[in-house]
Amino acid sequence: MLIDAHTHIVPEKFPDFSRRKNGIRWPQMDPVDACSARVMISGKNFRTVRDNSWSVQRRTEEMDTEGVHRQVLSPMPKLYSYDCHAPDALDFCRYVNESIANMVQAQPDRFFGLGIVPLQDADLAARAIEEICALGLRGVEIGTNVNGRSLGEPEFLPFFKEASRQKIAIFVHAQDPTNSERFTGAHLLENLIGFPQENTLAAATLITGGTMEHCPHARFLFSHGGGGFNTVLARLEQGYDTMEQFLPQRPRQYISNFFFDSLQYDAGAIRHLLASFGSHRVVLGTDYPFAIREQPPGKYLNELQELSKAERERVQYKNCLEFLGLSEN
Amino acid sequence: MLIDAHTHIVPEKFPDFSRRKNGIRWPQMDPVDACSARVMISGKNFRTVRDNSWSVQRRTEEMDTEGVHRQVLSPMPKLYSYDCHAPDALDFCRYVNESIANMVQAQPDRFFGLGIVPLQDADLAARAIEEICALGLRGVEIGTNVNGRSLGEPEFLPFFKEASRQKIAIFVHAQDPTNSERFTGAHLLENLIGFPQENTLAAATLITGGTMEHCPHARFLFSHGGGGFNTVLARLEQGYDTMEQFLPQRPRQYISNFFFDSLQYDAGAIRHLLASFGSHRVVLGTDYPFAIREQPPGKYLNELQELSKAERERVQYKNCLEFLGLSEN
Repeated sequence: MLIDAHTHIVPEKFPDFSRRKNGIRWPQMDPVDACSARVMISGKNFRTVRDNSWSVQRRTEEMDTEGVHRQVLSPMPKLYSYDCHAPDALDFCRYVNESIANMVQAQPDRFFGLGIVPLQDADLAARAIEEICALGLRGVEIGTNVNGRSLGEPEFLPFFKEASRQKIAIFVHAQDPTNSERFTGAHLLENLIGFPQENTLAAATLITGGTMEHCPHARFLFSHGGGGFNTVLARLEQGYDTMEQFLPQRPRQYISNFFFDSLQYDAGAIRHLLASFGSHRVVLGTDYPFAIREQPPGKYLNELQELSKAERERVQYKNCLEFLGLSEN
Repeated sequence: MLIDAHTHIVPEKFPDFSRRKNGIRWPQMDPVDACSARVMISGKNFRTVRDNSWSVQRRTEEMDTEGVHRQVLSPMPKLYSYDCHAPDALDFCRYVNESIANMVQAQPDRFFGLGIVPLQDADLAARAIEEICALGLRGVEIGTNVNGRSLGEPEFLPFFKEASRQKIAIFVHAQDPTNSERFTGAHLLENLIGFPQENTLAAATLITGGTMEHCPHARFLFSHGGGGFNTVLARLEQGYDTMEQFLPQRPRQYISNFFFDSLQYDAGAIRHLLASFGSHRVVLGTDYPFAIREQPPGKYLNELQELSKAERERVQYKNCLEFLGLSEN
């Protein structure tokens, strides 16, 4: 059994939001041929995607070929729309969420779904959780920052408190990194250098900003293995022990509901994730269907010969079910 | 034999630079008692330090107690002075460098020294290398950014080309992180979250910005294990393979003269460094004599029971000698 916790979708088309008076940056799909389309954002091609981004049939064919039993579907992060007028963004999120719910309903034994919310308005995002659950989705995907603000900032607490109360799954996925003037070189580095930075900051500031103190039961999966968060956590612990007790509890006390995907393209990195957080906290993820994805799924996990059958099964699917709130326990 | 590659000094006192017309932020030492002083920067206490920051006798006593045979001395990074008028900063660097040279000369069998240069003017910094070598120092310590600019920016190439030509050692140590508005919580997080971010960016941008393409023989030691650089390097490789060949060679081809210290406060992290870069690239470092230091030196390295004698000796001192240009090979 293999569940891929980190896969993305793009709907085949979007309604025409362009006449909304606050409408900016609304995506449009520009078909290239029968099997692919350009995702146009602000009139520019953000990415050309194939029909495995929206077609249930194409996805399940590829899953069968690659031995993946189930996927967790989450929107392509560029669709977050945090920079839009919040009520308009909510309408956009609803459309995307319904698209995902339709995919899940078409093949409920193959897919789980996560939706998106207008986190630029934490109260509005909190109220949107109920309809996400009503669609049969397991939770949400959120960015590592919201218009440049870290997730640990107190303004996001109303959302996390409600997410914690409703026990939904929260998949944290990088997009639009800050600090990009430091990524000397190709534009691509916003993704390659920026995403690990972002995932590190997301996990760290949910602790240092006090979110986990207030929402100890909120359940998070950090993409790309949490970037370099395991390294930062050890440094937070050392600073706490030797310099200043900057939190009510030790930093490591706050990670009991953190999961990390295995998407670091290196067997040694997965081994270090397992050593850092335990075999019950690492979840298989691949970034399917995008170019940078791990292919075949489990490529690096399979190199870890030393894992027991029980440990391997946890990473391959059991931990993901627990993250989704579907644990048999 | 144990060499600690990552230790800092602060001179016992500074000359009065305050009447320099461009003088800003010049440090002054404000004695607290016979054994400690406040480092005053812009009139504020940056850090209270003890006499083991400057006293050769106190340091060698503590080294003897902790089983450290030799230390590499580098200035406390707050002394870089990159935000000062460059010619004034050069005078300040000279004073600090002479202080280190005096410590080395007092106990040449116990200390190696690294100096500082006014990297805000790369040509001036390049010209300063010769006098650093004349003082008997093995190379320089530099920041991970210079007034917010990444090390991989082309403006720093004149310095790195000269450093490569003269075969000096370059110790890269974080200070003054950018992106600090993202470190939600205590001020201390500029260090605890910021330094790993900075070390990651320094190592990554020396590759992505083209520095290593132009200076393949420049020799670097990255502090704090390079932050999360090993994680980012795997992602750079995956992006290179699947998205765009954004460099003339694969990213990993550029790290053959990179060293990383072991200062990650976690045996598993050192194990991952060794797996990522090989046992010839990891160097013991502790941050002596500051509060956050690893104590006793080698605490986490000693947990790695699986290392061979040869591997352990490389990390304990042989790699450091190679970094310093003193390899027996």
